[in-house]
Amino acid sequence: MPERLAEAFAAIQQDVDAAFDAFLPVPDDSRAPLLEAMRYAVIGGGKRVRPLLVCATARLYGVARDAAVNAGCAVEAIHAYSLIHDDLPCMDDDDLRHGKPTVHKAFGEAVAVLAGDSLHALAFDILTMPGTSADPFVRSELVATLARASGHGGMAGGQMMDIASAQRDYDLPEVTRLQQLKTGALLAASVELGAILGKVPPEGRTHLRAYARDIGLAFQIADDLLDVEGDEDKAGKALRKDEGQGKQTFVTLMGRDAARRQATVLVEQAGQHLASHGAEAELLIELARFVVRRDH
Amino acid sequence: MPERLAEAFAAIQQDVDAAFDAFLPVPDDSRAPLLEAMRYAVIGGGKRVRPLLVCATARLYGVARDAAVNAGCAVEAIHAYSLIHDDLPCMDDDDLRHGKPTVHKAFGEAVAVLAGDSLHALAFDILTMPGTSADPFVRSELVATLARASGHGGMAGGQMMDIASAQRDYDLPEVTRLQQLKTGALLAASVELGAILGKVPPEGRTHLRAYARDIGLAFQIADDLLDVEGDEDKAGKALRKDEGQGKQTFVTLMGRDAARRQATVLVEQAGQHLASHGAEAELLIELARFVVRRDH
Repeated sequence: MPERLAEAFAAIQQDVDAAFDAFLPVPDDSRAPLLEAMRYAVIGGGKRVRPLLVCATARLYGVARDAAVNAGCAVEAIHAYSLIHDDLPCMDDDDLRHGKPTVHKAFGEAVAVLAGDSLHALAFDILTMPGTSADPFVRSELVATLARASGHGGMAGGQMMDIASAQRDYDLPEVTRLQQLKTGALLAASVELGAILGKVPPEGRTHLRAYARDIGLAFQIADDLLDVEGDEDKAGKALRKDEGQGKQTFVTLMGRDAARRQATVLVEQAGQHLASHGAEAELLIELARFVVRRDH
Repeated sequence: MPERLAEAFAAIQQDVDAAFDAFLPVPDDSRAPLLEAMRYAVIGGGKRVRPLLVCATARLYGVARDAAVNAGCAVEAIHAYSLIHDDLPCMDDDDLRHGKPTVHKAFGEAVAVLAGDSLHALAFDILTMPGTSADPFVRSELVATLARASGHGGMAGGQMMDIASAQRDYDLPEVTRLQQLKTGALLAASVELGAILGKVPPEGRTHLRAYARDIGLAFQIADDLLDVEGDEDKAGKALRKDEGQGKQTFVTLMGRDAARRQATVLVEQAGQHLASHGAEAELLIELARFVVRRDH
C-alpha cells in the first residue's frame, strides 16, 4: 500500500474510533448492554473504506476534517448495522466478523437486532448535528442521500435481491444491478456526502458518481475473487460462501481472469473521471487501486 | 368515541394508507417481496395514533395537511419497523399483529428484518422530501428529533431495558423510565414533529412536551390494563404476556385500581397543559381520553 494511503487509513481509523467513543458513552443503567454492543460493532474494527471516501472527497472541496469525520461515521454506522443484521442466523448466519465473534454471538440475537437498529438511527442523528454542518440545507441533503442509498431503493433492496438469488440464477446484468444496490449505493453515497459537505451542486457531482460507480463494481469483483482465493485468517470472516450457496457472482459468470481484468479496467476508468482535480485526487485514485489489490 | 375524534381517525387512516401506497410502488424485479412486506406492515393496519398526534398538533399552527401526513407517515414507519423487529422469534416471538400474521410469519424472517430496516430508512427519506417542508431547517429538525426519539436514547433504549427486565425486577421509577423511552419517546416525538412543522421554537413546545409525557404514560398504563383485561380478538394480538413473562408493569406494581386512577389523572393533566390553545386543542384532548378508554 502506498505510504500516503496507509497514513490516510491510519488517521481515519483513529478519528472514527474516537468519534464513536464520544457518540456512545455507556450509561449506568440496564441499557448498558445495548451501548456495549453498538461500541463492539463500530469501534476498533473494519477498514473504514467508506469514511475515507467521505473524507478524501470532502478534502477536494476544503471541508473541515471534523465535519467529514462525522459524515464518515454516519455511513459507517449504516454499514455496521447492515453487517450486524446480515450476520444474524435468519440471514447469513455468520459467527465471525473482523476476526471476532459477530454481535449476536457476543451479545445474543435480541440485543444484536436492537444494536443494529440503534446504529441505524445514530447515523441520522449524527448527520443532523451542528458539528456535521452549520448549514441546515446541507444537513437535510446528507440525510436524504444516505436514507435513499440505504433503504429499499439502495442497500436493503440489493440485500433483498441477494436473498431472492437463492431461488433462481441471475445473469450478469442482474448481478451487476444487485451489487450496485447492495454494495455500490453506500460507496456512492460516501463520495456524495463528501461533495454535499463541500456544497457541490448535484450537476457538479457527475464525475464523482462515475468514479463511485466504477470503484463500487471493482470492489465487489474483488470481493468475489477474495471469496474464492482469499485467506480466512486475513479476511477475519468465513469465505467460500458463494460457492456453497450456489450463487452467481462476477467470478462464476465471467471466470477469474476476465473478472480480474474487468476490475483493473474499472479502477483505471475510475481514476480518469477525477482527472480534472489533478494531483489533489491522488488519494482517491490510490484508494481505487487498493480496493482491487487488497487481501482482506 | 366522540364523533369528531372518530372522523379524525377515519381521515388519518385513509390519508396515511394513500401516502404509503404512493411511497411504496412494487417494482417489477426480485425486490418485489421486500416492497410487499413493507406495504403489508404499513398499509391498512394500526390505529394511527402517532400520525393523528402529528396532524392534530400541526393543525394548531396552521400547517398544511399533506406536510403533516408525510411527517405522520415517518413516525408510523418507525413504529411499524419496531413492531416487525419486536415480533421476531429472537425478540417477543409473536405470530399475530393487527389481527393478521406478523411479517416474519407471512414473508419469512430474513425479509422481515430487511422490511423493518427499509421502513426505518424510509422514515428519514420522507422527512427530507420537499413535500414535507420547503424549509431545510425544518427538515433537519424533524430528522434530528425522530432519530433521537427512536435510537438508543429513546425507543430502542427502552426496548433494551425491557429485554433486561427478564433478569431482574424493576421498581416503579424504573418501569416509568422504561416506558417513557419505549413508548413515550415516539409519542412525544409525534407531538414535537407537528410543532416543528409549525415552526414553534423549542421554548414554545414545553406545554406540548408535558402533554405528550402525560399521555405517553397514560397510554402505557392502559396497555398494561389491556394486557390483563383485554379481549384478544379485539386487540388482534396475543395478550396476557406480561404475566407469563413475570414482568413488572404499572398494573403489577400499583394494582389495577390505582393504575386506572393514575391513568385518568394523567389524562386530565394532559388536557390542562393545552388550556392556552382553547377550543382548538379539543381534538388532542379527546385523543388523550381515548388513549385510556380504548379496548384495543
